[in-house]
Amino acid sequence: MKCKKCGNKAVIKLRAHRIALCREDFLSFVLNRVQQTIKRYKLFVAKERVVVAVSGGKDSLTLFDILQRLGYPVEGFHIDLGIDGFSNRAREAVEVFFAKREAPLHIRFLREEVGAGMREIASQVRRPLCSLCGLMRRYIMNRFAWEKRFSALATGHNLDDEGAALLGNLMRWQIGYLARQAPVLPAIYPRLAKKAKPLALLSEREVLAYCILRAIEYHDEQCPYAKGATSRSNKEALNLLEYYSPGSKIRFYQEFLKHQGIFPDSASHDLRECSMCGFLTNRETCQFCEILEQYTGSPVPVRDSETGKG
Amino acid sequence: MKCKKCGNKAVIKLRAHRIALCREDFLSFVLNRVQQTIKRYKLFVAKERVVVAVSGGKDSLTLFDILQRLGYPVEGFHIDLGIDGFSNRAREAVEVFFAKREAPLHIRFLREEVGAGMREIASQVRRPLCSLCGLMRRYIMNRFAWEKRFSALATGHNLDDEGAALLGNLMRWQIGYLARQAPVLPAIYPRLAKKAKPLALLSEREVLAYCILRAIEYHDEQCPYAKGATSRSNKEALNLLEYYSPGSKIRFYQEFLKHQGIFPDSASHDLRECSMCGFLTNRETCQFCEILEQYTGSPVPVRDSETGKG
Repeated sequence: MKCKKCGNKAVIKLRAHRIALCREDFLSFVLNRVQQTIKRYKLFVAKERVVVAVSGGKDSLTLFDILQRLGYPVEGFHIDLGIDGFSNRAREAVEVFFAKREAPLHIRFLREEVGAGMREIASQVRRPLCSLCGLMRRYIMNRFAWEKRFSALATGHNLDDEGAALLGNLMRWQIGYLARQAPVLPAIYPRLAKKAKPLALLSEREVLAYCILRAIEYHDEQCPYAKGATSRSNKEALNLLEYYSPGSKIRFYQEFLKHQGIFPDSASHDLRECSMCGFLTNRETCQFCEILEQYTGSPVPVRDSETGKG
Repeated sequence: MKCKKCGNKAVIKLRAHRIALCREDFLSFVLNRVQQTIKRYKLFVAKERVVVAVSGGKDSLTLFDILQRLGYPVEGFHIDLGIDGFSNRAREAVEVFFAKREAPLHIRFLREEVGAGMREIASQVRRPLCSLCGLMRRYIMNRFAWEKRFSALATGHNLDDEGAALLGNLMRWQIGYLARQAPVLPAIYPRLAKKAKPLALLSEREVLAYCILRAIEYHDEQCPYAKGATSRSNKEALNLLEYYSPGSKIRFYQEFLKHQGIFPDSASHDLRECSMCGFLTNRETCQFCEILEQYTGSPVPVRDSETGKG
């Protein structure tokens, strides 16, 4: 198997793109792909201040590595969820990764922010742990990005994540979600930061191969509370279609983006400021504040979003 | 395992509907389901003249059996495709099935209609055999239904067929196909008969179970030229999702039908009469006439559609 670009020995075959590539050309391919994604979908421009949400897993560390190599002035943001040993090991992987690089890393501890770890909160709140965790992480990330005046919050969602979410939304015909699933979600004034997914056109396998070829030491451990069978089965179904017809996954996602305008977005019009924290929600009180209230038994004080501690 | 309706021993468990049923109650369930489909999607009313396209396989014979039991005045239509022994055995299964029932059966032989079997035509025409066969069968069925003044042409497409087609159309975002995929396609004047799919809410497994419990002797043989890997992989992917989350398939299809209006249908506006046969097409000459011209090397005569031989 020879590299299609240079003729040297290839290390990876990409059936979806009908090419095989050597190490160097594969790494360039990945960088170009991310740069294309950023430009084609207008994720951000060269001098924007971008913060990358880093969990410590392969996707987020790869994303940080790539954005830094492409010359974007990125910083990292990690949330320590306070889950037994799991969160310690995740944070350590992030700290080791950043210690080798010249880039600021911001860390927030859930225990310090709200007084408890994710499991303790989940035990008091009627909501599945994974959904609770996703909701709280999204809130804290957005609040951090907004308060620290970052122009965009970048996350490591890859093509498999986005394809699985798309398939899941289609299986249930969740029109609102279909209208809002994109590589970039613009900021909404006030207090909703722009979200960007620069890895959206790279498959999980491509990201993993990049991570391995760069010898990035990522945190390779499933959360002890992870279930996520739905997203796994959607990924499996797409992998099956990809196996029979290479290129299906990327076409599915990109053609969707071309036709996405078909789906009417009604929910965005209903946004208002949360009565407690002031961040945007489609309810009277946002779900984050509701959860904290359920957990602590008392309302959380409204914090000035422009002067929050950093 | 007990029948949810009567408490007797169940013969089948339907995870999508969270019930187990005995033989009698399952057979009633299937009949009710078809009746619901006919009413909910306005396929046809009690006294319409409906012709059922019968290939001899489990789906089409089951469909005929059910419509007859429901009291619709149905007739059968079979096309002998002239494929080696395969077509003989298919036709014989149909003939045996109809010999036991009081219902008219109409048979057309491709060899008599166009002078050759499907394989001979395919060898002369640049087009994959399965696509050619589907196109020719659809033309002949529509022409028969229209010329014999049937009000509707019913086919045995089941939920797995419709779900797989839907998934395939979504994987490629074929908006026009999405706009026109439905349990009923209305007649278009002149010469496009109404199409109906009364089994659209029954899974392949449910149809097969019905067929076995009724001891219907169907033609259980794959066409020697069948490939169809794409539709198979779409079915496999849906079965995987159904396995993880029972009820996914039926919800996927029914929710789609609720939201189908989102997809704009542009192609239907472009229909015109074929310059050779007069049947509707979106080209100057319809694909059926083009194929025959390619095969015979000379144009086919235009036949008066209202007085065609029967």
